[in-house]
Amino acid sequence: MTEPQIAEEPRDDDAYALSERLVPDLRLALATSNADRVRALFEPLHPADVADVVEQITPPERRELLVLTPELFDGEVLSELDESLREDVIEFLPQKALSDAVRELDSDDVVDILEDLEEPQQEALLDALEEVDRAAVEIALSYPEDSAGRLMQREVVTAPAHWTVGQAIDHLRNSDHLPEHFYHVILVDPRHRPIGHVTLGKLMSSKRDVPLADIQEEVFQTIPADQDEGEVAYAFNQYHLISAPVVDADDRLVGVITIDDAMAVLDEEHEEDILRLSGVGDESLTDDPLQIARQRFPWLGVNLLTAILASIVISLFEGALQAVVALAVLMPIVASMGGNAGTQSLAVAVRALATKDLTASNALRVVRREAIAGLINGLAFAVIMGGLAALWYGNPALGGVIAAAMVINLIVAALSGVLVPLLLERAGKDPALASGTFVTTVTDVVGFFAFLGLATIVLL
Amino acid sequence: MTEPQIAEEPRDDDAYALSERLVPDLRLALATSNADRVRALFEPLHPADVADVVEQITPPERRELLVLTPELFDGEVLSELDESLREDVIEFLPQKALSDAVRELDSDDVVDILEDLEEPQQEALLDALEEVDRAAVEIALSYPEDSAGRLMQREVVTAPAHWTVGQAIDHLRNSDHLPEHFYHVILVDPRHRPIGHVTLGKLMSSKRDVPLADIQEEVFQTIPADQDEGEVAYAFNQYHLISAPVVDADDRLVGVITIDDAMAVLDEEHEEDILRLSGVGDESLTDDPLQIARQRFPWLGVNLLTAILASIVISLFEGALQAVVALAVLMPIVASMGGNAGTQSLAVAVRALATKDLTASNALRVVRREAIAGLINGLAFAVIMGGLAALWYGNPALGGVIAAAMVINLIVAALSGVLVPLLLERAGKDPALASGTFVTTVTDVVGFFAFLGLATIVLL
Repeated sequence: MTEPQIAEEPRDDDAYALSERLVPDLRLALATSNADRVRALFEPLHPADVADVVEQITPPERRELLVLTPELFDGEVLSELDESLREDVIEFLPQKALSDAVRELDSDDVVDILEDLEEPQQEALLDALEEVDRAAVEIALSYPEDSAGRLMQREVVTAPAHWTVGQAIDHLRNSDHLPEHFYHVILVDPRHRPIGHVTLGKLMSSKRDVPLADIQEEVFQTIPADQDEGEVAYAFNQYHLISAPVVDADDRLVGVITIDDAMAVLDEEHEEDILRLSGVGDESLTDDPLQIARQRFPWLGVNLLTAILASIVISLFEGALQAVVALAVLMPIVASMGGNAGTQSLAVAVRALATKDLTASNALRVVRREAIAGLINGLAFAVIMGGLAALWYGNPALGGVIAAAMVINLIVAALSGVLVPLLLERAGKDPALASGTFVTTVTDVVGFFAFLGLATIVLL
Repeated sequence: MTEPQIAEEPRDDDAYALSERLVPDLRLALATSNADRVRALFEPLHPADVADVVEQITPPERRELLVLTPELFDGEVLSELDESLREDVIEFLPQKALSDAVRELDSDDVVDILEDLEEPQQEALLDALEEVDRAAVEIALSYPEDSAGRLMQREVVTAPAHWTVGQAIDHLRNSDHLPEHFYHVILVDPRHRPIGHVTLGKLMSSKRDVPLADIQEEVFQTIPADQDEGEVAYAFNQYHLISAPVVDADDRLVGVITIDDAMAVLDEEHEEDILRLSGVGDESLTDDPLQIARQRFPWLGVNLLTAILASIVISLFEGALQAVVALAVLMPIVASMGGNAGTQSLAVAVRALATKDLTASNALRVVRREAIAGLINGLAFAVIMGGLAALWYGNPALGGVIAAAMVINLIVAALSGVLVPLLLERAGKDPALASGTFVTTVTDVVGFFAFLGLATIVLL
């Protein structure tokens, strides 16, 4: 092994981006109905990349692709495809192509495809499966949506806990039907309850007469079949699990979840967090403008109500605004600074809640810490903005008013940024659920009220 | 296997939350310096959970814990600990405890701990390692920060590509030193370049005389040692990799990255995205208020500048504001709606860029789609808010002005929400980098200008 070559900076920021030529070339091939060229363009791609390309072309191009080369939509491409597109594609695919596609998939991937389809499409797909696979898929579908039961694969590799390495290896080597991918042999008791597991690596490197129980992993975690998939992803990340057995209410083994599925869930959960924080629902890049507008309308509506609330607060001070027009000019600064400071503590709090780092044990301390940080930055910006306003309008009293309002609003912002998600969580809601809108409502209302109220007292 | 029991809803939303009694009990034990009780409380916990608890107690409690039971801080706990705390803990740990701690770790975990430490602490830890381990760690540290070279473990399991299953199994079973966890046997050519890999499961279940090359995985991806770790995490998630060989500039094998490390990186990247979008840097729950205030100050400063810019726009219309005080009352509504709509499209765009779903191939279409969606919601809220304003002030012309301003600002918001991150990305910057502040600046300035400008033309 030679000394590795050392680079200054990580390079290849777009290492896995698709070639910029690919989509234009595909467009041309589709426009000329050149099926061979289309196949040649897709040939070197991983199914996940094929799906990405299918998502990036326009709906008419997609239709052309489906007619021209339906065989490109194999099972793996279908399971990589965004849910919002899958239904359209499946509707358009010839029955034969569809049956071929699903038959090659593992049961968990079939479930993943099926759960988003309408009844008649579900039936058509189920009919395409063999008896055994169909039963496995139907059992998985009987678990609640987004549960471990939907995520798991039914194919498991087990061994009685009292076996030796040699017995396990012989058993494995004589099995006809091992799952495509597995990383552990699960040790079960006579009632089929998992009580430990052994990695294949350990199995490989241990002597034949060693009992399996002696080489089992230290960390072993079973997952209830009805557990929420978000919790499953958390457990994999927190405890560095590679695969984990899924058990029913009687602790009996019903399936296994592997880390690649957990990683995909973790990624989806993050997507949900980042979109929900901004008041966006389940939206996809392939939705049309009307769908998007409709999905974004509700939270914009909530925002309108809160903005009107802030306006009502302002209207209480019409007299002051008429007397001192500088107040109208300066008031958005107080509100904007509060909104920004609130968003900062909100992001930190939502993230800490997601990683279970913010708990009942330290909530009080975190809240106190936010208040003090808000006070510090409030004072800093009070000095800066108070000074600027006093100079701008040659009015020290006006500077004092905006300075005081800034301190008040930045403390309130820091507090509401952490309290809003904490309260949402306590109420059993998602702490990210459009909490941005709530926080900026608070900072708008408090900002306008503090600034205009103080101005009325001090300046009039 | 019995029929699994079916629940209605996924339960156990807090399945992996620590007991609420744990931290209070620990506090009591620390206050009474009861080392046995402290050990008993930590005994059942996974190292990751121990680290979480250590993060949740106060700094004085942490100090007491370090003095009372330094042996609790073993290598695994240290590597689970938040970076911001690790330095303090390591400084306080007796040299003996520290040496014991790092000696039990894999080279990649030692690197992870070492890279955040100051020079003298690094030296002390390196001295505690055995010669071979020390060399491995030093080579990893010579790769750039946040690169695949830092993430990989040096311990690899290889076999010549021409071997059979039997040869590989015999070789593995006779090896003294196999890595703690491995999932593939990497096939290498005579120059030690990886050309494929075989899963342990396939190896187990294949006949002894089958050539390894015949059972290698279809998807095989090598990772350059200097590739950014964010790209590595993307590749694992996109291509469902479980482990991947890392190669130097000559394509020679230098290490291997496993999916659990990639999942941890994915999680960190998401944290970065969500915090950066809100203008928060590298912040941790254990930072003190002054540290937080200092970290949040710069982006609040940027926000102040942009808020002042918006105020200057308002001040251009002081005459109009003095003549019609209703303008001061209503203008924040237009700005707030624009800010919210802009944040929505921003969140969607940042996420789509992170998953490489938004590319040069579809950027134009996405931008057009945003503009149309902005127009639709702009028209909807123009009708609603125009009507309300006309009624509120009994002034249809005022209603018309706010309606027109609403349409303009919601289109601009949707456009800037997608264009700002696209331009940041094009400029080689992180598209999440406080783009929220830029977008709301645009919507504030345009909102105030459109509303007050139209009012000046129409109403005065």
